[in-house]
Amino acid sequence: MTDIVFTSLLGDLPATVPFVGPETQERQRGAKFYARLGANENIFGASPKAIAAMQAGMAEIWKYGDPTSFDLRNALAKNLSLPAENIVIGEGIDGLLGYLVRMMVGQGDPVVTSDGAYPTFNYHVAGYGGDLFKVPYRDDHEDLDGLLARVHETSARLIYLANPDNPMGTVHKAEAVEAFISRLPKTCLLALDEAYIEFAPEGIAPNSNKLFDNVLRFRTFSKGYGMAGARVGYAFGPVALISQFEKIRNHFGMNRIAQIGAIAALSDQDWVAHLRDQVSEARRRIGHIAAQNGLGVIPSATNFVAIDCGQDGHFAKAVLAHLVNAGIFVRMPFVAPQDRCIRVSAGTKADLDLLEEMVPKALEAARLKT
Amino acid sequence: MTDIVFTSLLGDLPATVPFVGPETQERQRGAKFYARLGANENIFGASPKAIAAMQAGMAEIWKYGDPTSFDLRNALAKNLSLPAENIVIGEGIDGLLGYLVRMMVGQGDPVVTSDGAYPTFNYHVAGYGGDLFKVPYRDDHEDLDGLLARVHETSARLIYLANPDNPMGTVHKAEAVEAFISRLPKTCLLALDEAYIEFAPEGIAPNSNKLFDNVLRFRTFSKGYGMAGARVGYAFGPVALISQFEKIRNHFGMNRIAQIGAIAALSDQDWVAHLRDQVSEARRRIGHIAAQNGLGVIPSATNFVAIDCGQDGHFAKAVLAHLVNAGIFVRMPFVAPQDRCIRVSAGTKADLDLLEEMVPKALEAARLKT
Repeated sequence: MTDIVFTSLLGDLPATVPFVGPETQERQRGAKFYARLGANENIFGASPKAIAAMQAGMAEIWKYGDPTSFDLRNALAKNLSLPAENIVIGEGIDGLLGYLVRMMVGQGDPVVTSDGAYPTFNYHVAGYGGDLFKVPYRDDHEDLDGLLARVHETSARLIYLANPDNPMGTVHKAEAVEAFISRLPKTCLLALDEAYIEFAPEGIAPNSNKLFDNVLRFRTFSKGYGMAGARVGYAFGPVALISQFEKIRNHFGMNRIAQIGAIAALSDQDWVAHLRDQVSEARRRIGHIAAQNGLGVIPSATNFVAIDCGQDGHFAKAVLAHLVNAGIFVRMPFVAPQDRCIRVSAGTKADLDLLEEMVPKALEAARLKT
Repeated sequence: MTDIVFTSLLGDLPATVPFVGPETQERQRGAKFYARLGANENIFGASPKAIAAMQAGMAEIWKYGDPTSFDLRNALAKNLSLPAENIVIGEGIDGLLGYLVRMMVGQGDPVVTSDGAYPTFNYHVAGYGGDLFKVPYRDDHEDLDGLLARVHETSARLIYLANPDNPMGTVHKAEAVEAFISRLPKTCLLALDEAYIEFAPEGIAPNSNKLFDNVLRFRTFSKGYGMAGARVGYAFGPVALISQFEKIRNHFGMNRIAQIGAIAALSDQDWVAHLRDQVSEARRRIGHIAAQNGLGVIPSATNFVAIDCGQDGHFAKAVLAHLVNAGIFVRMPFVAPQDRCIRVSAGTKADLDLLEEMVPKALEAARLKT
């Protein structure tokens, strides 16, 4: 095919993608989705002030963004009660996790995560040749004791934990997370993914100004701020860790208008509260729809709800297929027994009306099929 | 400082950045620049149709971008007379070069470039542990014979060439580039950076639908389309090369609104022609300003002009410092003898009025100082 020789690592990688996007699925099925509830996007949208700021800023799209994201880091610094030097901005949490893995992981290095947790983290670890050690969920929660044990067994120097979790939406309390950190070897870095933190109740995140020597925390404007399309994520932690990103990140990688939008969004916390309310309401409604059909849900601290379809992964997959076929974009956990669930993002009233209509039909179809 | 152990490669890297942005310089000098002529941005701006499309699209910023950039790749496919599968989209050429280097370069691998060419490429090569072999410019052009010789000497499997060149703005004709390619070992991949191609005369770029087994060509919406802040670059070449990006790229890294803007910009080629005219006019004016001061310029096929300050790098640096001090953001080549020049981006009439006023003063100051 080609005489070009790539790295031996690249040769070993599959050409797979972490997720198939809804647009690809729409092209495959030859029709648009009526409801887009599969990617945990925040359908209630970005702050009108952020949208207006980005629209106004568009006249300066000819300028590169500030490679230091100085203004945005300072706005976040105020929000987090931290100096700006403790914060790095990147192209979504995905981009920042990629940088982190590059900084930490070489061929054969052990890395610990939960089995069924965020596939994009796994994609990055595989992409740098790391060895992933996966710990099963326990009662639909990430298993803190199990993760710790695996770190000790494997001498892993990097571990991933999402709190709130995705895809189950469960949480551990801040005290449990802090206890977990205190029991981690000092040589093991915790990548604590708090992408969904804005939807969680009080007491889930350790105080933002409490820095841990071996912890980087990742947050985003994609979920709580309704700006997934902007690709703005950030990490915060001790300077000794944060400063390492400067050596390898794509300094001019940030969209200038997204930087403007993130600053405006951050200053509109009323909108964040409004989104939180909308999401809470949608979560309740999804729980109600599940109950109407004799199903339970996993209590969620995020903008999605895992509906327990009550049988195995085969059955849930059939339910999901029927919903997707009916024009509702949803996804599901990859790993048993979590794959007994389908994962539904918080939607509008119209979205959930359609869901309410289709869930009984999907269950019926799945029961006939399996 | 920290108990965390990074890769040995990271430990060897300096915490330097390829470029210091104008915003950082403004903060350092405590005042805004009056004229922003240092980063080869296209101050004449993006297509009003692209701006309007992005403003209208902003209501959907809550959605992730299509990770396959399907519509944009298809629009580019039409524009380049190539199938969409021959094209990959990325976070600017910078992002794509980073992916390419990751795909090709391991510790100690030889890579060839010109001495004084694009620093961000060098940053990526260093970042993956490659050994850079730099070939001096010849008569202010990238030295094709010298580059070829160095490839053979070092058995390099990756070479970088910009045509048009940055920072000098010079070009080689398409036939020369094709002859160069034909003499490259088939095992050596040419990264042909055509970031400035929209400003070049006919006959500089090989036909876009002529694919070479060992060439990837990089283009961008940052320069000819006036959308540097959007971060949309693309590469095209044979599928055997293009498909490799799928294994490692940040699939959800593209800003959704930037994708929309790029498609709209591509369909407004009248605006591209308009920008080309504005840039030509500004280039002429910069040449005129230089001549008024007894200086020459390097003929440019880009949206910037290298003004030959007529003495050494020390002198040009003093000229540059005076201009920057007077509120004109400009940059200069890093390496002798090209560092006898300062590099001035095409500016508005007001920008160049200020330049015209300040160049004599800067020259006078530099003559007194050196």
